[in-house]
Amino acid sequence: MSRVHKHRPGETDRDRLCFIPLGGMGEIGKNMYVLEYGDEILVIDAGLKFPDSELPGIDYIVPDISYLESNRDKILALIITHGHEDHTGGLPYVLQRIKAPIYGTQLTLGLIRNKLQDDLPMLKPDMHEIRAGDVIKIGSFTVRFIAVAHSIPDCVALSIETPLGRIVHTGDFKLDSTPVDGRVTDYGAFAEEGDKGVMLLCSDSTNAEKKGFTPSEKIISATLDTLFRTYRSKRIIISSFASNVHRIQQVADVSARFNRKIAFLGRSMTRNAELARDTGYLKIDSKIIINIEEIWKYSDNQLVIVTTGSQGEPFSGLVTMSRGENKSIELGEHDVVFLLASVIPGNEKLVNNTINRLFAQGCEVVYERDRQIHVSGHASSEELKIMLNLTRPQYFVPMHGEYKHMVRHSQLAQEVGIPSRNIFLVNNGEILTFTRNNPPKKHGHVQSGAVIVDGNAAGSIKSEVLKERREISEDGVMVVAAAIDERGNLAAPIAIETQGVFISEDSADIFKELYAVSEQTVQELAGSMRGRANPDALRKAIKTRVRDVLRKRNSSFAVVLPVISVKSADSNNIFEKEFF
Amino acid sequence: MSRVHKHRPGETDRDRLCFIPLGGMGEIGKNMYVLEYGDEILVIDAGLKFPDSELPGIDYIVPDISYLESNRDKILALIITHGHEDHTGGLPYVLQRIKAPIYGTQLTLGLIRNKLQDDLPMLKPDMHEIRAGDVIKIGSFTVRFIAVAHSIPDCVALSIETPLGRIVHTGDFKLDSTPVDGRVTDYGAFAEEGDKGVMLLCSDSTNAEKKGFTPSEKIISATLDTLFRTYRSKRIIISSFASNVHRIQQVADVSARFNRKIAFLGRSMTRNAELARDTGYLKIDSKIIINIEEIWKYSDNQLVIVTTGSQGEPFSGLVTMSRGENKSIELGEHDVVFLLASVIPGNEKLVNNTINRLFAQGCEVVYERDRQIHVSGHASSEELKIMLNLTRPQYFVPMHGEYKHMVRHSQLAQEVGIPSRNIFLVNNGEILTFTRNNPPKKHGHVQSGAVIVDGNAAGSIKSEVLKERREISEDGVMVVAAAIDERGNLAAPIAIETQGVFISEDSADIFKELYAVSEQTVQELAGSMRGRANPDALRKAIKTRVRDVLRKRNSSFAVVLPVISVKSADSNNIFEKEFF
Repeated sequence: MSRVHKHRPGETDRDRLCFIPLGGMGEIGKNMYVLEYGDEILVIDAGLKFPDSELPGIDYIVPDISYLESNRDKILALIITHGHEDHTGGLPYVLQRIKAPIYGTQLTLGLIRNKLQDDLPMLKPDMHEIRAGDVIKIGSFTVRFIAVAHSIPDCVALSIETPLGRIVHTGDFKLDSTPVDGRVTDYGAFAEEGDKGVMLLCSDSTNAEKKGFTPSEKIISATLDTLFRTYRSKRIIISSFASNVHRIQQVADVSARFNRKIAFLGRSMTRNAELARDTGYLKIDSKIIINIEEIWKYSDNQLVIVTTGSQGEPFSGLVTMSRGENKSIELGEHDVVFLLASVIPGNEKLVNNTINRLFAQGCEVVYERDRQIHVSGHASSEELKIMLNLTRPQYFVPMHGEYKHMVRHSQLAQEVGIPSRNIFLVNNGEILTFTRNNPPKKHGHVQSGAVIVDGNAAGSIKSEVLKERREISEDGVMVVAAAIDERGNLAAPIAIETQGVFISEDSADIFKELYAVSEQTVQELAGSMRGRANPDALRKAIKTRVRDVLRKRNSSFAVVLPVISVKSADSNNIFEKEFF
Repeated sequence: MSRVHKHRPGETDRDRLCFIPLGGMGEIGKNMYVLEYGDEILVIDAGLKFPDSELPGIDYIVPDISYLESNRDKILALIITHGHEDHTGGLPYVLQRIKAPIYGTQLTLGLIRNKLQDDLPMLKPDMHEIRAGDVIKIGSFTVRFIAVAHSIPDCVALSIETPLGRIVHTGDFKLDSTPVDGRVTDYGAFAEEGDKGVMLLCSDSTNAEKKGFTPSEKIISATLDTLFRTYRSKRIIISSFASNVHRIQQVADVSARFNRKIAFLGRSMTRNAELARDTGYLKIDSKIIINIEEIWKYSDNQLVIVTTGSQGEPFSGLVTMSRGENKSIELGEHDVVFLLASVIPGNEKLVNNTINRLFAQGCEVVYERDRQIHVSGHASSEELKIMLNLTRPQYFVPMHGEYKHMVRHSQLAQEVGIPSRNIFLVNNGEILTFTRNNPPKKHGHVQSGAVIVDGNAAGSIKSEVLKERREISEDGVMVVAAAIDERGNLAAPIAIETQGVFISEDSADIFKELYAVSEQTVQELAGSMRGRANPDALRKAIKTRVRDVLRKRNSSFAVVLPVISVKSADSNNIFEKEFF
């Protein structure tokens, strides 16, 4: 954090290309990658990340875009590779702060429109719909959009021609040879770019530690077929990601084969299915779709209910069902639930609790990994090596992954012959600079990090606030309120309240001691301060003394929070005048 | 929770056998099962459970043993099946409250002695060492101890002859045909008991959803062999469970083959290894063991360091190393770390963070599942079916598992021919009663649940306290302190303090409004209460009004905690007298 990159405009700058990740490195989430040449900036993706338990109570986090804000005028475009939250979810935050046209495919832009309509209905950004295969000139950059398969339709990788060389950015991808929509990852395009010469490859590291190939999404059809046959007489409830249109397509196809009707449950699932059907990415005969309110008209073996909740999200369809709190549907022994998604790391406990509750409702639950109820949307190691061999880049940057994934991916790159000196593990905020005559170099950094979005408040992360939350979440908080007069003497009795504090029964009399100690502290301090109130000193003294009592009695490690009110002679008069 | 079992002594009772789980049902942890016949009670195991994120700040939880405390005189024995924490960790709590002799094998009792020495050095319970094969009469019960394989040596299952029939309790087990210590699960003994007739089988459900057989612990040797060859020149750091003596044995054996010295790092690892060596369960030539302080004398390829931390425990050897904060060892590019344990559900994040940090230290890390660096200590479904077929019980109770595991286990039992009416899913606290002439019945329940142990305080779980902690951990707490006089008017200015509250910058002026609203609330209430202070009403009013402001301003969902101090005319005089 020592050297901060100062952008000096001028001749030398013109011939310098900087790759600056603002998010997505050393983490899965909040992807945002910046390409800067001279006074032109391209931004690739603007994602969010859901926080883990280390950020209690935070809704989500987005990249710190201070660097973009202070280079606002240079930004030519925001290119969004696909419609997943970790690539689009930062847009409401970003678009309030910078103005730039958005480039994306039809479905991607449709999902972004839905999102903006909810969060920022007034905002109407400039949107440019592109298709895979398009080549578009944006300033000094020439961007070719390349079709890739993933777990949502209409994804693209980018090949960006810059004055200093070509950069291939894979986005999220896998090499599914039999994708559900038939839109295969465009090997040929990558090979062509490789033939023209790729200076830098930035590639998806998510599954770098997985051996072999990621199975085709299509295997889900076979699994569904078996499951539909096994549970022929039961009502079927399926939980999946609302954005995984391919999977919903397969559910619809198998439902049609088994003469079952589909009802979508939950807002995001219903709306995504609608958008995908409207845009032609999801093909379902409207005769087999019914409204969730109509399910009573059908028998169990005529129904499939599709909902969210595969990650145990508290307000999702599946979770409310598991609690017996869903308005539309009540589960019982005639039901079987398929969880058609693997658990995202960090959600294990939520999902597990949901499964246990579903069993307690009496229904059968299918969730085991060995049933092939999920395949990943990301390339495994053999596919990553193919991508490296197709593009044959001079330099390589593993992106989109935790540190361990990036390390593994760089090991794969070395296996296919890229020398380790040509591989760069770039952290968020670091600047990788390319020049004409020298090899690229990590050279300083820009401000980067996480901005928390908590309810409607968004702001730079205040680690102090989070530290405080963690502390009080461990042992609770004990408030000691002391109102003193201008001479430091008590103006009212001490009041003590607790929140989340556990005092064991054998030390219930501890409060007597706590009141006594607090009063004594006020008294002593009033004496030593020569008759002048000193609220800061009192705050500190109460904190120490009360904490000592709690520790000494082995009672609690609660956070002690003194609240001091000082009644000045003047304010006293004011109160008297006003209130009497 | 409606009917509470009243124990009525008398004739009818004498011929009634009750099985009452106090922990271990619907959960993995705090195992404790009670068998009661007339006025005789046997207790099997006394475990603890580590809490999940829903119990912030709690050290661990133990079963509520109120039922045992009020039937103290009936308890004939505590039988401990093996030395794992989820079977022994409740003993310090239990032994302070009930007095009964403890039965266990040599290693199990050794581990218990170590634990008690730390926690309760004054307590010297009566300990009876038994061996697998022993048959012991305890009151009306005749207990046969049967050898079983698991992930710690010296485990036993129990076959308990009662006046109403035989109960087989498997404890934790697997059917490892090639256990590291050669002590195979005693199939013959289970078959014998089956031939004599088993009324009830209680069996380990942990891996009921795993297909096939759990691999033998011995496969770890082959993995280690490969890894030691692959990383021949590096210093090897191995992290595992301190209690998994079999795994430490295999590490020692392969270290000897590769001419490496072993150093144990960390208190629990060092002490457990010592105990296991003293008792002969761990066989390591003392020539190959060195002290951790001596490692500097050896080159990288001569060293193996064995430590804890496979679950990402904050103060473990591995985690302090990953942070670069371990006093004995600093990691670098010449090191390779093997995580020889799978991740216990709930610890995923901690372990993952540790792995990423280890990579950042520059060392290689081996942790992938497909490397066979871990095998479970619990029987998979095929083994569970074998146990059911060996014992051929009339009735079956799946135990030791989450609800989903118990459901799966009962499905396995049905597959091997036990009718579903003879299978009981018993919850903690429920009483399954056996009589001579009728089939068993779930019949009421005893008090049960969790007792939290938080620091040095132990007590009945106060769900209110935990709810409060969760609330403040999400959004912080805002304290509004108001000191009022006996007529309800402010005796000092309102004071507001926050802990863990996030107020975004654009609503910083919100505090002005909060002070104003609070003062106004006091004022209004003083007016409406006809000049008599009503602190409860004021507390409620402030809470509502302040919360409304926060919500209206979209500012925060903080918990609002009013702290009211009332200065009575009397107390006022007292203060004046005392302090002036």
